[in-house]
Amino acid sequence: MIMSDNSLVQVKAYKKDFEYSYTLGAFPTMELINSRPNQVMAVYVSSKFESDLDIMGICKEKGIPVIESDKTLNRISTKENCFVAGVFKKFEGTLEADKPHVLLVNVSDMGNLGTIIRTLVGLGIYDLGIVAPAADIFNPKVIRASMGAVFKMRFQVFDSFEEYEKLYGKHDMFPFMLDGEKTLSIDDRPKSDCFTLIYGNEASGLPASFKNVGQSIFIPQSKDVDSLNLPISVGIGAFVFTRGR
Amino acid sequence: MIMSDNSLVQVKAYKKDFEYSYTLGAFPTMELINSRPNQVMAVYVSSKFESDLDIMGICKEKGIPVIESDKTLNRISTKENCFVAGVFKKFEGTLEADKPHVLLVNVSDMGNLGTIIRTLVGLGIYDLGIVAPAADIFNPKVIRASMGAVFKMRFQVFDSFEEYEKLYGKHDMFPFMLDGEKTLSIDDRPKSDCFTLIYGNEASGLPASFKNVGQSIFIPQSKDVDSLNLPISVGIGAFVFTRGR
Repeated sequence: MIMSDNSLVQVKAYKKDFEYSYTLGAFPTMELINSRPNQVMAVYVSSKFESDLDIMGICKEKGIPVIESDKTLNRISTKENCFVAGVFKKFEGTLEADKPHVLLVNVSDMGNLGTIIRTLVGLGIYDLGIVAPAADIFNPKVIRASMGAVFKMRFQVFDSFEEYEKLYGKHDMFPFMLDGEKTLSIDDRPKSDCFTLIYGNEASGLPASFKNVGQSIFIPQSKDVDSLNLPISVGIGAFVFTRGR
Repeated sequence: MIMSDNSLVQVKAYKKDFEYSYTLGAFPTMELINSRPNQVMAVYVSSKFESDLDIMGICKEKGIPVIESDKTLNRISTKENCFVAGVFKKFEGTLEADKPHVLLVNVSDMGNLGTIIRTLVGLGIYDLGIVAPAADIFNPKVIRASMGAVFKMRFQVFDSFEEYEKLYGKHDMFPFMLDGEKTLSIDDRPKSDCFTLIYGNEASGLPASFKNVGQSIFIPQSKDVDSLNLPISVGIGAFVFTRGR
């Protein structure tokens, strides 16, 4: 059943204070529908929409309205040729206390945040803490960069590291810093079943006070670069900690 | 000494067939001047240019002309607020036969190529092979994403894998594939002093024929993602192979 475009509130170009956001494109929209069906308000399709994925059938099965509206898609999409979008209510959660965590302190780039989410879900870490101010996890650019993996992630936003620590302070904490005390090594790596890997802002890293938090870690790198980029550092840290237990 | 803007050939917005390219912004321009001074044709600065880095002094010392031209900077820069750019003659090289290599087969995204270069130089791999067709390593977007690390890299472009193999076939080859035979593990990792890590295109990966090349490798990942993204896979592979010898 395809509905006309006056059946719901008008969907506007995304802003951070909205109570909803959206997925752009078939792949992240399928991830949304499959992982978080109860959050989906509607799926918008273009008059030109065709797909191998049976989005229509799945929406019908789950009782999700499908609305044909080129106008809406043009309004909300940032790139051309977006033929399908899912609109969903934002959701929040809490982290699982006995699972490994990653904590991002003041991550600022939306593409980086999305890539980190995709990487962590790929490596089997499903709990992500974010210390604000930070990039908005619901921005459609983050969702796109995550390839929809954001819908498989538990995440929780904190106003400060202290707020995170109060709730999850029993985790073994590993802040990643350019002047970290322990050099990350494969043969002499830290082992923990319940760890938190902590990373700072892209430009400034973690504040010096994190040297006093748990065991600070340095990923060895040549002097020919300023630093590794943030998603790469998270990928290397997460791989060594998850595969090296 | 600052020259006027009619002293050289007119610098135009970048195209792949040009014999020159450029760095946009102070950081990659400094990397260019310090690493490849003989390739630099000129440095362009804006009338508003100010920098903590002593670009003027270093250019004078190395005999590089500095030209003030807002018009040229506006023409070649893709973003606003570009106050300095370096113009350089393209260069080629050959890989060192007794050093570890990474070989990218048909890499297509310029941001990915730049991030991979930054990552490899950071992890101490200075020899990069590229099998064409592939993203243009001299595109200013690649140079920017590499943070100037491209000027510290030896690289060589090949028309086919066979052409690479003919020259460097003594390397231990490790193609990274989603159906790779050996799962990358920390405790049972392949060891080699003279390896080539081989990666395919972002969307399609390596052709199936690479299963017959050396020892194919799979980076273990959850079913909740389609795959890890390319720079992350390269970062994890390069870390394990360089730190695990």
